[in-house]
Amino acid sequence: MNPGFSVYGISTGLLQPGDDIVDRVLTALSATDAQTIADNDILLFAESPLSTTEGRNIRLADVVPGSQAETLGKKYSLDPRLAQVVIDESDRILGGIPGFLLASRGNLVLPNAGVDESNAPDGWVTLLPKDADASAARIRKEIRERTGKETAVIIIDSRTHAMRLGVSGVAIGCSGILPITDERGKADLFGHELQVTRRAIADSLASTAELLMGEANEGVPVVLVRGYRYTFSEHAVIESIAPEEDLFLGSLSRNG
Amino acid sequence: MNPGFSVYGISTGLLQPGDDIVDRVLTALSATDAQTIADNDILLFAESPLSTTEGRNIRLADVVPGSQAETLGKKYSLDPRLAQVVIDESDRILGGIPGFLLASRGNLVLPNAGVDESNAPDGWVTLLPKDADASAARIRKEIRERTGKETAVIIIDSRTHAMRLGVSGVAIGCSGILPITDERGKADLFGHELQVTRRAIADSLASTAELLMGEANEGVPVVLVRGYRYTFSEHAVIESIAPEEDLFLGSLSRNG
Repeated sequence: MNPGFSVYGISTGLLQPGDDIVDRVLTALSATDAQTIADNDILLFAESPLSTTEGRNIRLADVVPGSQAETLGKKYSLDPRLAQVVIDESDRILGGIPGFLLASRGNLVLPNAGVDESNAPDGWVTLLPKDADASAARIRKEIRERTGKETAVIIIDSRTHAMRLGVSGVAIGCSGILPITDERGKADLFGHELQVTRRAIADSLASTAELLMGEANEGVPVVLVRGYRYTFSEHAVIESIAPEEDLFLGSLSRNG
Repeated sequence: MNPGFSVYGISTGLLQPGDDIVDRVLTALSATDAQTIADNDILLFAESPLSTTEGRNIRLADVVPGSQAETLGKKYSLDPRLAQVVIDESDRILGGIPGFLLASRGNLVLPNAGVDESNAPDGWVTLLPKDADASAARIRKEIRERTGKETAVIIIDSRTHAMRLGVSGVAIGCSGILPITDERGKADLFGHELQVTRRAIADSLASTAELLMGEANEGVPVVLVRGYRYTFSEHAVIESIAPEEDLFLGSLSRNG
């Protein structure tokens, strides 16, 4: 059984293109009760500040929107140049509401494909990390090299949920942790086989981190979770679900 | 800024109809590092064990399915008696996949309207609490009467998310805490007004609790969060979003 865990916000201050994010985290960590990195710590990074350090920023003035972007921009009341960036960053545009496109990207369904106008200089937008799993693996390796500690790293974003107000967290990449546990074959308290057999551990950790990160100018781009017993995995990926097995998309397409 | 917080699992053992859940929590708490209730602790209760103590169990043998339940049972391969209970417990059936109906109930969209076959005796199902906000308010009042401490109480369930494998947490009722914070007017690090202005604090806390509760026979129906700075609210409700403003339902209905 998991006895419990502690959660610490790490205030690095504003991150800029080219900043060494691991160095900034290690420095800022010493001002928290966590003090230093320990083995089995989980570090969660907000995607937008991380992307910024990786140079994943685009100036909208440099974007020329195509005809699909012009059409979507008109239909959903958003800057056609932003629509073009969202198209470029996504596999498929699923729909939209005024101000936002709903886009799929790999195993994610995200507002504006994760393209972020907040927390970027005027006229610039921040893209998601090019490969969030690779970013997580790189950070984990750098932490190991600099501290000798074995950690898990998760890159997170905010997401909305059907019919709910407000955002919570979602994992978009990870390294060193099994993101979804499979409890098939396990029994409930009455010895029945479990109905719900997979748990989105990385997404739940992402929501835990969101509680401290906030969306405003709080400058907490990284959160440390200590004491949570997770399952190690060197090469785990965050699996998506087939649309026809998905209760939301499956239901709505069967209805439609 | 929120400096950090601690999370404790509380193992009450199996809960039965009529059990005094507050008494069981206070007793079990003494075996954890948290020891006793403190002011501003947040207590999160899994809905199914709580419902059981409230007598919200139904024996399927006592249910007579109507024609809609027979039709849905056939279409989605589930026991028509279970389909009838789901219909009775929901406002609207939105669709389904084999084994599950997608149902709306108040401000929630939930598989099988929260009707749970796991963790119930053979042939029985557990319903959601009749009024989860009222359950939360009652528990909070009982804790105050027995300990003198002012706490927040959240009732939680598991939910799935579009295109994602695995469940995370969702708040279905609360007392003493503002479940969704509104940051309209706040600025980001560059002084822009925030795009995403509402945060689903109660849902993120529910996912935090899910990390310790598990789905299997772990017997952790209650989780305590200590040190998280939340906003007090005496009569907050978990607001839902209008379908046309909802990025998922709005998108899919515009597309369909």
